Amino acid sequence: MKKDLQSLQDLLLLKLRALYDVENTLVKALPKMAEHATDPELKAGFEQHLRETEQHVRRLEHAFEAMGYKPEKIKVEAIRGLITDAEWIMKQVPKGQTLDPMLIAAAQYVEHYEIAGYGTAREWADLLGHTDVEEILRQTLDEEKHADEILNVLATDRINQTAMV
Amino acid sequence: MKKDLQSLQDLLLLKLRALYDVENTLVKALPKMAEHATDPELKAGFEQHLRETEQHVRRLEHAFEAMGYKPEKIKVEAIRGLITDAEWIMKQVPKGQTLDPMLIAAAQYVEHYEIAGYGTAREWADLLGHTDVEEILRQTLDEEKHADEILNVLATDRINQTAMV
Repeated sequence: MKKDLQSLQDLLLLKLRALYDVENTLVKALPKMAEHATDPELKAGFEQHLRETEQHVRRLEHAFEAMGYKPEKIKVEAIRGLITDAEWIMKQVPKGQTLDPMLIAAAQYVEHYEIAGYGTAREWADLLGHTDVEEILRQTLDEEKHADEILNVLATDRINQTAMV
Repeated sequence: MKKDLQSLQDLLLLKLRALYDVENTLVKALPKMAEHATDPELKAGFEQHLRETEQHVRRLEHAFEAMGYKPEKIKVEAIRGLITDAEWIMKQVPKGQTLDPMLIAAAQYVEHYEIAGYGTAREWADLLGHTDVEEILRQTLDEEKHADEILNVLATDRINQTAMV
């Protein structure tokens, strides 16, 4: 049992370290998602979200700094599992109109994972009175929610339908 | 590349198999979460959600049946990663007021994962005209959203505050 996990402040720091690992893992994974997408808007969406994710990494660095800590990662198995499943999909599902809806589904799993993570971290930062950290986390949380909505619109407007042909 | 992943219908079946693995994995994991919770309402919440999860397994069996397939699992790495992270938490964080908020955070990761999964599956079932399957999936989706809301209320009403002491 770790001695440094005794308070909500410790948990917030742990959560930031976990999210820092998650975002860095996604920076490596998103180009592969973009590469496998066929629909031009979906491809552009993944490329856009890669740039946002790079920004999320920097925001977490600012959050660590605001709390007086150096940015540090803790290995998160969930994001590795999410990426492993996405890689299985990219290997097994034929590229094009069948893979596109499945890529959206995989990306929405990741968005929801991050929405839960940032939701918790933002709540804890708020409660602890770290208003600067709370503000940083809220910005990213809003972007993850927006990314999920964009994927929803892409899927329901066009991409799911084309997979039915 | 698999020959049986060519259409949205194939993807829906794949998604049902994945969710069937997820729910069965959770039936095994939830008792441990309940056991490690200290707050009586949180403990009761996990026990209640275990009973719901057992029901979700049965609902998926009905969905397979409605589509003319036998229930079958496909191994999902994401849920294994989520559980591995939760087990790490239960080992590293001292039981009581510090572990409780972290258990809620771990459970909300899982709820959000399921909300994304059922959201996609429900949408595909609807588009394919499988109204019976869509109805089954929507029931579970609503329960996962409700479980997430209950965890939110528990966290913000009391459990997060007690971790600050």
